[in-house]
Amino acid sequence: MDPTDRETACFEAGVKFGALYHQFAGAPVSPKSAASLETAIEETIENQPYCEEVSVDIHTDELETTRGYTELTGEYMDVVMRIEYEDCIVHAEMAMEDGYPLMRVVDIVGE
Amino acid sequence: MDPTDRETACFEAGVKFGALYHQFAGAPVSPKSAASLETAIEETIENQPYCEEVSVDIHTDELETTRGYTELTGEYMDVVMRIEYEDCIVHAEMAMEDGYPLMRVVDIVGE
Amino acid sequence: MDPTDRETACFEAGVKFGALYHQFAGAPVSPKSAASLETAIEETIENQPYCEEVSVDIHTDELETTRGYTELTGEYMDVVMRIEYEDCIVHAEMAMEDGYPLMRVVDIVGE
Amino acid sequence: MDPTDRETACFEAGVKFGALYHQFAGAPVSPKSAASLETAIEETIENQPYCEEVSVDIHTDELETTRGYTELTGEYMDVVMRIEYEDCIVHAEMAMEDGYPLMRVVDIVGE
Repeated sequence: MDPTDRETACFEAGVKFGALYHQFAGAPVSPKSAASLETAIEETIENQPYCEEVSVDIHTDELETTRGYTELTGEYMDVVMRIEYEDCIVHAEMAMEDGYPLMRVVDIVGE
Repeated sequence: MDPTDRETACFEAGVKFGALYHQFAGAPVSPKSAASLETAIEETIENQPYCEEVSVDIHTDELETTRGYTELTGEYMDVVMRIEYEDCIVHAEMAMEDGYPLMRVVDIVGE
Repeated sequence: MDPTDRETACFEAGVKFGALYHQFAGAPVSPKSAASLETAIEETIENQPYCEEVSVDIHTDELETTRGYTELTGEYMDVVMRIEYEDCIVHAEMAMEDGYPLMRVVDIVGE
Repeated sequence: MDPTDRETACFEAGVKFGALYHQFAGAPVSPKSAASLETAIEETIENQPYCEEVSVDIHTDELETTRGYTELTGEYMDVVMRIEYEDCIVHAEMAMEDGYPLMRVVDIVGE
């Protein structure tokens, strides 16, 4: 059975989260460089189809280490995203849950 | 509105495709090394939740260049995947369409 | 035989180029988003040890495609970098040569 | 001043380490899938110029988590590599030191 527009919108939201995470995981990040990385992640992923808005919040206060930077992983960032496909709007997010970054659909609007 | 199980299954399928693509894009690949990369991509992504089966076909005959290898992009591989979430099964694929790798849900079964 | 400081400086320069390339290859990039990605790449890699300055120039005028963006590869950017290790300064660059992005040491100063 | 062959060999070794790390960091890995990832990392990086041998040892016994897999980082693998450029042979390695993965040149042979 073919997907509905809502289902396609959810698939597209998932693609963006998987892309965001695995494109940028491992990038060296410090308190000083976090802001430019946030902006680049947002604008980079917003290039993808149906991706209307991405907001990334890197936890700057958790990045300090003895070598001055750490490697970006899901534990250091929250992400919210809005996907629009046909008449459907999907809000999705990534945040820590039980020690792991959990990506999920928060809300779907439209048919 | 919360997602249905079908919608969540589609979201999860999308996550796996985005992850697969952006984890492995850019990897140097040659005709000789393509088989081990296919296997590793499959087994790596199958670690993710709800991901029951991944099959990757790298187009070995297109990888030859004057330097002996190329960088993996969507144009050099086809992917099919089966995601199972609750009672829903999603089949999704990535293949070239109009010159770009298109990821899409092929079929959804279950409520 | 242990490496000299000059040799270690060259090794460190190589690490930064390999990291830069394989961290960011595959990122969706458009004329509009190229500037933020340039800045993030520079500041991200400058976090690494001994890396004093990175300058990235993405070829904005080559990024237009029918879908509005492309995936970053070496053919779309030039990079210059300054590494300082002990008393040695290495200048290295990445630029296209014979159709491939070539990374190389341009100059070494110091013992 | 142009680099010597030894210095170029060290630069090339660095490129391979940076590439290896940032291509594969973040990949989901479990005890069951570690072997295929090791092989793929080795064969993938061996495609690069002057890279004669790569050996990757993923610490399988450290990968278990409550969700069954973890994301690959430097703390979970040791790497040794042999680079040959002109008449120089560089042995380099990555291993944990003081809590961080340290990449270094172990030995250089030849002029």
